[in-house]
Amino acid sequence: MDNNKIKKLLASVKDGSVPVEEALRKLKHLPYEDICFARVDHHRHLRQGVPEVIFSSGKTVEQVVKIARAMNKQSGSFLITKASLMIYNSLKIKGAVFYPDSGIITKGEKKKKAGNILVLTAGTSDVPVAEEAAVTASFLGSKVETVYDVGVAGLHRLMDASVRLQKAHVIIVAAGMEGALPSVVGGMTDSPIIAVPTSTGYGTSLGGLTALFAMLNSCVPGIAVMNIDNGFGAGCLAHKINTLSSKQ
Amino acid sequence: MDNNKIKKLLASVKDGSVPVEEALRKLKHLPYEDICFARVDHHRHLRQGVPEVIFSSGKTVEQVVKIARAMNKQSGSFLITKASLMIYNSLKIKGAVFYPDSGIITKGEKKKKAGNILVLTAGTSDVPVAEEAAVTASFLGSKVETVYDVGVAGLHRLMDASVRLQKAHVIIVAAGMEGALPSVVGGMTDSPIIAVPTSTGYGTSLGGLTALFAMLNSCVPGIAVMNIDNGFGAGCLAHKINTLSSKQ
Amino acid sequence: MDNNKIKKLLASVKDGSVPVEEALRKLKHLPYEDICFARVDHHRHLRQGVPEVIFSSGKTVEQVVKIARAMNKQSGSFLITKASLMIYNSLKIKGAVFYPDSGIITKGEKKKKAGNILVLTAGTSDVPVAEEAAVTASFLGSKVETVYDVGVAGLHRLMDASVRLQKAHVIIVAAGMEGALPSVVGGMTDSPIIAVPTSTGYGTSLGGLTALFAMLNSCVPGIAVMNIDNGFGAGCLAHKINTLSSKQ
Amino acid sequence: MDNNKIKKLLASVKDGSVPVEEALRKLKHLPYEDICFARVDHHRHLRQGVPEVIFSSGKTVEQVVKIARAMNKQSGSFLITKASLMIYNSLKIKGAVFYPDSGIITKGEKKKKAGNILVLTAGTSDVPVAEEAAVTASFLGSKVETVYDVGVAGLHRLMDASVRLQKAHVIIVAAGMEGALPSVVGGMTDSPIIAVPTSTGYGTSLGGLTALFAMLNSCVPGIAVMNIDNGFGAGCLAHKINTLSSKQ
Amino acid sequence: MDNNKIKKLLASVKDGSVPVEEALRKLKHLPYEDICFARVDHHRHLRQGVPEVIFSSGKTVEQVVKIARAMNKQSGSFLITKASLMIYNSLKIKGAVFYPDSGIITKGEKKKKAGNILVLTAGTSDVPVAEEAAVTASFLGSKVETVYDVGVAGLHRLMDASVRLQKAHVIIVAAGMEGALPSVVGGMTDSPIIAVPTSTGYGTSLGGLTALFAMLNSCVPGIAVMNIDNGFGAGCLAHKINTLSSKQ
Amino acid sequence: MDNNKIKKLLASVKDGSVPVEEALRKLKHLPYEDICFARVDHHRHLRQGVPEVIFSSGKTVEQVVKIARAMNKQSGSFLITKASLMIYNSLKIKGAVFYPDSGIITKGEKKKKAGNILVLTAGTSDVPVAEEAAVTASFLGSKVETVYDVGVAGLHRLMDASVRLQKAHVIIVAAGMEGALPSVVGGMTDSPIIAVPTSTGYGTSLGGLTALFAMLNSCVPGIAVMNIDNGFGAGCLAHKINTLSSKQ
Amino acid sequence: MDNNKIKKLLASVKDGSVPVEEALRKLKHLPYEDICFARVDHHRHLRQGVPEVIFSSGKTVEQVVKIARAMNKQSGSFLITKASLMIYNSLKIKGAVFYPDSGIITKGEKKKKAGNILVLTAGTSDVPVAEEAAVTASFLGSKVETVYDVGVAGLHRLMDASVRLQKAHVIIVAAGMEGALPSVVGGMTDSPIIAVPTSTGYGTSLGGLTALFAMLNSCVPGIAVMNIDNGFGAGCLAHKINTLSSKQ
Amino acid sequence: MDNNKIKKLLASVKDGSVPVEEALRKLKHLPYEDICFARVDHHRHLRQGVPEVIFSSGKTVEQVVKIARAMNKQSGSFLITKASLMIYNSLKIKGAVFYPDSGIITKGEKKKKAGNILVLTAGTSDVPVAEEAAVTASFLGSKVETVYDVGVAGLHRLMDASVRLQKAHVIIVAAGMEGALPSVVGGMTDSPIIAVPTSTGYGTSLGGLTALFAMLNSCVPGIAVMNIDNGFGAGCLAHKINTLSSKQ
Repeated sequence: MDNNKIKKLLASVKDGSVPVEEALRKLKHLPYEDICFARVDHHRHLRQGVPEVIFSSGKTVEQVVKIARAMNKQSGSFLITKASLMIYNSLKIKGAVFYPDSGIITKGEKKKKAGNILVLTAGTSDVPVAEEAAVTASFLGSKVETVYDVGVAGLHRLMDASVRLQKAHVIIVAAGMEGALPSVVGGMTDSPIIAVPTSTGYGTSLGGLTALFAMLNSCVPGIAVMNIDNGFGAGCLAHKINTLSSKQ
Repeated sequence: MDNNKIKKLLASVKDGSVPVEEALRKLKHLPYEDICFARVDHHRHLRQGVPEVIFSSGKTVEQVVKIARAMNKQSGSFLITKASLMIYNSLKIKGAVFYPDSGIITKGEKKKKAGNILVLTAGTSDVPVAEEAAVTASFLGSKVETVYDVGVAGLHRLMDASVRLQKAHVIIVAAGMEGALPSVVGGMTDSPIIAVPTSTGYGTSLGGLTALFAMLNSCVPGIAVMNIDNGFGAGCLAHKINTLSSKQ
Repeated sequence: MDNNKIKKLLASVKDGSVPVEEALRKLKHLPYEDICFARVDHHRHLRQGVPEVIFSSGKTVEQVVKIARAMNKQSGSFLITKASLMIYNSLKIKGAVFYPDSGIITKGEKKKKAGNILVLTAGTSDVPVAEEAAVTASFLGSKVETVYDVGVAGLHRLMDASVRLQKAHVIIVAAGMEGALPSVVGGMTDSPIIAVPTSTGYGTSLGGLTALFAMLNSCVPGIAVMNIDNGFGAGCLAHKINTLSSKQ
Repeated sequence: MDNNKIKKLLASVKDGSVPVEEALRKLKHLPYEDICFARVDHHRHLRQGVPEVIFSSGKTVEQVVKIARAMNKQSGSFLITKASLMIYNSLKIKGAVFYPDSGIITKGEKKKKAGNILVLTAGTSDVPVAEEAAVTASFLGSKVETVYDVGVAGLHRLMDASVRLQKAHVIIVAAGMEGALPSVVGGMTDSPIIAVPTSTGYGTSLGGLTALFAMLNSCVPGIAVMNIDNGFGAGCLAHKINTLSSKQ
Repeated sequence: MDNNKIKKLLASVKDGSVPVEEALRKLKHLPYEDICFARVDHHRHLRQGVPEVIFSSGKTVEQVVKIARAMNKQSGSFLITKASLMIYNSLKIKGAVFYPDSGIITKGEKKKKAGNILVLTAGTSDVPVAEEAAVTASFLGSKVETVYDVGVAGLHRLMDASVRLQKAHVIIVAAGMEGALPSVVGGMTDSPIIAVPTSTGYGTSLGGLTALFAMLNSCVPGIAVMNIDNGFGAGCLAHKINTLSSKQ
Repeated sequence: MDNNKIKKLLASVKDGSVPVEEALRKLKHLPYEDICFARVDHHRHLRQGVPEVIFSSGKTVEQVVKIARAMNKQSGSFLITKASLMIYNSLKIKGAVFYPDSGIITKGEKKKKAGNILVLTAGTSDVPVAEEAAVTASFLGSKVETVYDVGVAGLHRLMDASVRLQKAHVIIVAAGMEGALPSVVGGMTDSPIIAVPTSTGYGTSLGGLTALFAMLNSCVPGIAVMNIDNGFGAGCLAHKINTLSSKQ
Repeated sequence: MDNNKIKKLLASVKDGSVPVEEALRKLKHLPYEDICFARVDHHRHLRQGVPEVIFSSGKTVEQVVKIARAMNKQSGSFLITKASLMIYNSLKIKGAVFYPDSGIITKGEKKKKAGNILVLTAGTSDVPVAEEAAVTASFLGSKVETVYDVGVAGLHRLMDASVRLQKAHVIIVAAGMEGALPSVVGGMTDSPIIAVPTSTGYGTSLGGLTALFAMLNSCVPGIAVMNIDNGFGAGCLAHKINTLSSKQ
Repeated sequence: MDNNKIKKLLASVKDGSVPVEEALRKLKHLPYEDICFARVDHHRHLRQGVPEVIFSSGKTVEQVVKIARAMNKQSGSFLITKASLMIYNSLKIKGAVFYPDSGIITKGEKKKKAGNILVLTAGTSDVPVAEEAAVTASFLGSKVETVYDVGVAGLHRLMDASVRLQKAHVIIVAAGMEGALPSVVGGMTDSPIIAVPTSTGYGTSLGGLTALFAMLNSCVPGIAVMNIDNGFGAGCLAHKINTLSSKQ
């Protein structure tokens, strides 16, 4: 609700070009769509830089499909996270792509890619989360590279990626267990780092809490931390930072 | 350890201009200084974009002072966090500035400020953490503005800051208790948001864990979360993002 | 056991109109029914304002059915929570209604509705819990309205409901993840607010604990908080408050 | 921001009686006061039914005093919680009253009391929290009675209060340790119950978490639960419910 | 290893009636049986007052069966906890009895019952744990009575059992959710009380931890608390206390 | 409230020997004393086998003194736990005894001792808790012996106490850190064992939670567990069991 | 990256026998193999004393098989942990051995065994974890003995193993529930002890956390603790210690 | 209690050279000393390889001094951990040495040092814990070297210590915050590693629990983990491993 728009609208009311009732409606009628169990927020992309995304968990297949169709109709594109094959099969929308490892469905990915995001994982088990991040950022229009299985127990594997580390605008690091990789990467680069703890591990990995807390306590200052297994969030933030220069 | 430097060094060894022993030393001699209980990492700024910083907790006053003097001698500048007045008084370094609310001491703050970082707090009790973030980012060379006490119980106070929200390159939000402010701010802007949970509150605020977990679970995707009360980390990340365009 | 009743009973004993043995029995014989594994508390409605309700979890289908039939025989009405379709099919009681999303079965809902309860959810995944609250309050005799999917990431959706917010006697807010919606609603109304944390989310949502703790720490004072996913309790409390005026 | 006010304002703009610039200002100028480290929200009482209250923890004595003076000047009344004698002595405001046990300072308590709130405690150690609730509700204009030390280990003490239980519009129960009192009270009355867990106890009382969780799991449905030691919140909610009839 | 036995053995060695090698063997040869994956401790009953019992969880069906048969051969009796129907069917031991609700299998229960143990539950869902306690104590030779579903939300149901409360030597109370029943029972009797928290409940019942902590914090001093769902342990302790007089 | 007493009272009402008003009063007038912030429960000893005890934490010195004096006047005896020297000095009651290590004050300890309670500790740091148990049980009339510092790292020390282990009616074991001692003692005796976890230790001893959980998980079935550092509760339970034979 | 190798390489560069480009490659080309989702670290054995091992959890069957084949091709041996029969059947590698209880698959176990490792368990349910440790250490080349089911509730069973305890170079103790066995074993021997908490138990065993914390708090100093159920780690450490003398 | 000693004793009894009573005494009289609140275990060194050590926390100064004097008299040496200057000053034992940073007091340190233990810290704040480990191992007779402040944010500092890493028989790593250093060190060496989490850090470092859990989840297998801040335990284990070869 920025000042200029309101001022302009008020001016239109004053000069009579916009009737009072319509102005009221405009002030309130933001472009969302009420489909009973959900209010689809079609203008979120304008407001937040990332379009509304469908988080499948806790929704019925029918609900996910209805919301996706409403979005597809409005904008021709959508992104669904934590989706199952059953959702994908029920969608019946041409052009939709399903990534089975990370459970993402996309439609209408941006063709033009900008910038340079690097996605690393500590191990093979962290790849699904990393893929969620990579697909999300790519969908939004960022150029993304991935280097998997470069954990701290074999630092030489990480060293080989040092050139790519230096070139990246933003680096996403997915790691479970002790979550040490972001600290080590953080010691080697001056780019913003986004750490995603994964639920890889057992016992005192506590479903990813240990990796999360380790990342929050990194001795490298200023690492951005996401919720456990939240590759999607990492992809969004990486894209925002990666494309920040257009604003400046 | 980027490829070009090593190649050049190896070439010098080959043409004999650098003897083997010296090359070996160079490969290993990174500019840190061993003062027995600490190894001061003078080249961290080059490597990580943020100079090594002295975290006072768990160190004796004497240790903090010695490290600060070693840094001051090398670079003429330093930043100390979680510091006490006693540390400040023991430093006896001309030009050092002490911020008593946030416990920061700075020397040699960058004069030239770039970009635009906005720091918000939910309440008055969150100001010390916000100040730690603001002083850090400013020290590193970012332009910083602050708007305090705009919590969600009185949203109109936040609405008044909407112009500044739109103009900021990066937004830092410090909040304790239920930690809801970053989500609400995130619904109003497309800039990267850095959320810093504070230990403000009692009972089930659990020393800031509740605010932390709330921020990690924000329904706005891609919020960067810091450790509890870690204003310093927020300032570092905000500065990195704020000045990213120079790289691109 | 109020004074007047005991006094009256004692007077009857004194004047011989009630024999000692019968008085003793009366003092003790409260109208519950012992069906071996359960003691059905038929007079709970009189005592607590809400009839005894059958919580299905941890009971066998047979036990639930037996208790429901005992209640139905006594009062013609009952309410079962966390029920399955199998329980519903085993009941074979005419007039029983099954709500599959929230797992509630009702029989003998009050026809006459009073007051005005508004039930909000932050997202679509919170609807089952909200429905449990709405069905319960309606069953007990309250008028209930619902507005779903008005989370804080798109505040304009909530703003559209502001008239209904102002008119409600009591507001129930169901939210998972960061649990911020009750605070924002609380900033917009002077009606009592009942917050129900839901287990929506993953990772550090900790099965709803994060939303619970956030709600308990709301910067808006006096929000009534329920156990995680406890829509039933919210419906009971809302009904009690909604109909309080009849007492005053 | 209700529809009618906006419509009226827009009409005034249309007919020219209010210039555009002034309308814009009005839309935004809500009556809060910026005193740098705090934004005092003078109209909160209108909006939320409870005036803004000063929570002392985490604020300097100077900050508390400045905010209290700003409020006193505007409305002649204020309420400070978790306050110390030092704050009280620094206020130097005539008519301010200090309750040392609960750390509350009030000024301008409402003279006229309405309704009937009953405050119970399980033990003597829970009295400070109960007093915080009682003083708050009384300050806001509710009639309050208290019955202390009626814990479940000696149920007869509670039975003696049964007449008062029956007469109360709302009942506040403060209890630590195992937090069982609200369940027992809930079995004896149909009035809304507000349970406040206290940090009384040691070992596995976990600073009040055990009492909190026990209250959230009460087998009596619909008990409203507050944060640990949050007598203030209980007082606010009790007052809202107690005075609800004026709305209906 | 009491003094007299050792003395006697040493005397036998001295007078030559027991050779050195045999004495050594006797000192070490306690009557357990090594069946490779388990060492069946046949003399545990003598040493601890309760025979070794087979805890099925984490063992294969084959292992449970083998241990049970070894015990049956030695003593003609055994007790298996947390057992499945499949284990029971695989046993093929005549006289074995299976309790499907609590998953107990017994063989050779003591015929002669002594003393008086009363087992209470707060609700119907707590019955399986209570049954585990009752079957165990009865197996060991105690007389056991049960009263189920007498939770604190309807205290009159508990009052009806007051005569039985007064007569019991020991009282076992199984309760989940807020775990308040032991405190209320403890206020009505001077017999030792054994509280068994159950995992009944959801959300902040935390799988029984809340009931456990509430019981440990009872305002009635000296309640004996068991692990969550540990009806077996409660039965053992109750039996030991119930039959203590034979020792005195 | 046993049947016979009520029947007799009702009969007296019937025959006119007791007027209605007096009967009502008798039914309600249980011998507690209202001293405003506390209701002293003088007949608790009759009801629960243990007199009401003053838990000092969270009470002011004045409150503790007033309650102690009320008890002393009524019965000539009292027990105060977690007391300070300042409380003792403020009491000014002749015959009161202060145990500084465990913070207990007693007056009117029973002279005649019965039975045989053995109190063990794993280490020297557990002695204060053990002493609280020993003084409590002795005050109530049990004969108590103590053996300190017999932890599992040097089992031979425990072996030396085996005769006393065999003779004890009840055994109290106080242990912190890993809390293993009760299991080992439980393997050597058939007497009831009461385990008291202490807060001895650091790091993952978690203030005694680790010892508590270890004791609840003992592989010896039927160990009675107390709250952390709750020597008083252990003393009460031990006394109840120790004197049980008088009931049987 | 030890000094001598680098010196030698640099010398070769100097004398021209190794071109600059090749030297650079050599410095970086450590013998790992990139199979897209994994980087197989073939030289880990040289670097860490234990070869890279395949942890199956979180990997697809296909991924595990591919990595195992790459390792088999390179070295003729591999070790897979937490494996299923399906993985084993998919491997189709001659000589691979599957241990169904512990889910280990080995190929190419060392024939020559050295030293003496003793593996103990408290109960039968701990055997799978113990077997994981034993198979691992044996695979790496250590001589391993096992003694199962010697928990502290029947110490005489442990006493029988005392000769083997004295002879062992290293002792591994696997225990769940209260985790007391390592402390008792630690009191009987001067060999290094490796404690592995297992997830055996229920309720407050907290999935093994209680045993873990108990072991970390052992009153016997210097016990090495592993993650819950981490028999593999225990086997690795035991082997390293067992074969240490070859280094000295 | 090894077989040979018992056999020999029994033989002596048989041949009459040792009377029965004396044999009994010998079997029981292990060399500990009962000083009332403690049983000093003088032969622990023989049994466990490490002498009994005085852990000061929870003991009075007087108790610590008495135990130390008893040990000094018996063996001329002792080790006190977590000690204060006040304890040191009260000892008045010649030759006792106080280390103020780590709070250790030693007397009678072994002169002859064997083997090679390397102690690393991640930061300066971890030095006190590292010193506790180093002093302990040195006291017991191991040769110890230290390298401090080589955390993962500046890996080159660690690389410089690589020669010493290769030469060490055992490596102790003390680290707080994210606890990543042991994993990185573990990737560089085949020596046994002992990780000691420290309580350095704030917020989600959770007093060292995060570092502890990270170390338990290290991707390098077989790292031995100690309790938080338990430098003493690390020193004991390192010494045992370091001197193991003497046994083999």
